[in-house]
Amino acid sequence: MTLAEVFHTGITVSDLERSVAFYRDVLGLELVAQWDSAQPYLRAVVGYPDAELRIALLRLPRGSAGASGHHIELLEYRVPRGTRGDARTFNPGNAHVAFMVEDLDAAYAELAARGVRFKSTPVEITHGRNKGAKAVYFLDPDDVTLELIQPAHAAS
Amino acid sequence: MTLAEVFHTGITVSDLERSVAFYRDVLGLELVAQWDSAQPYLRAVVGYPDAELRIALLRLPRGSAGASGHHIELLEYRVPRGTRGDARTFNPGNAHVAFMVEDLDAAYAELAARGVRFKSTPVEITHGRNKGAKAVYFLDPDDVTLELIQPAHAAS
Repeated sequence: MTLAEVFHTGITVSDLERSVAFYRDVLGLELVAQWDSAQPYLRAVVGYPDAELRIALLRLPRGSAGASGHHIELLEYRVPRGTRGDARTFNPGNAHVAFMVEDLDAAYAELAARGVRFKSTPVEITHGRNKGAKAVYFLDPDDVTLELIQPAHAAS
Repeated sequence: MTLAEVFHTGITVSDLERSVAFYRDVLGLELVAQWDSAQPYLRAVVGYPDAELRIALLRLPRGSAGASGHHIELLEYRVPRGTRGDARTFNPGNAHVAFMVEDLDAAYAELAARGVRFKSTPVEITHGRNKGAKAVYFLDPDDVTLELIQPAHAAS
């Protein structure tokens, strides 16, 4: 078996409109499609026979520099309705998504001014294979951890 | 601000060796790098001043068909040590990662024979924009949901 692509990262959200507004309007991803589904095939895949979902699929704008076709899928379960667990990153099973930016200080300033919640100011990576890069963790509306990374070769 | 790439999805795991064995030896990803870190910069990024992590970075083999440079980062927190929350996909904050395959029935048969835990048999998508595709959810060693998708244009 050969995996052909790492196609998307799906994130369950509590309010699809709120999360689309964040990923599209604040982070600048492109909304590829949005749909509601209670189809039998979807219920079979997710494993809940009564499932009702609202789904949005986003990706980097096609004209952007990034070659990655990796998508972000946002899923709001209307049924079954879940509850938010402990979001701290040290708990096994929790995930984060990292985005590259050319200028992390500028991105941080812009997002912080828009109210995005960061775990620290930008941190310079001083050791190891990514020495010279910068990184920072921040939070989406459901306290999912996201990361911005400025690669070592980009402008500092 | 423009995001340049969706670089990686990070997953916190309880046992790095066990998870590397799964993602590399069972799913066929390539191990790009593996390292331990209790560096001050890392502690600043993750927001835990006493953090000690073991990290592995994986991606699709470079010779593979996939154009996606999206990486999977596995992180085991030795300190602070967390606990596994409720893994069910309807809980906000839970994530899944979807991989494309050319032949889902073959991939399912191979992985199931190796003991991989699936939520269903392969499901044909009968409605909507992905009509004709197939999908199935399965679990990693920490019960993180993963997905295999066969696109509609591939061999059925």
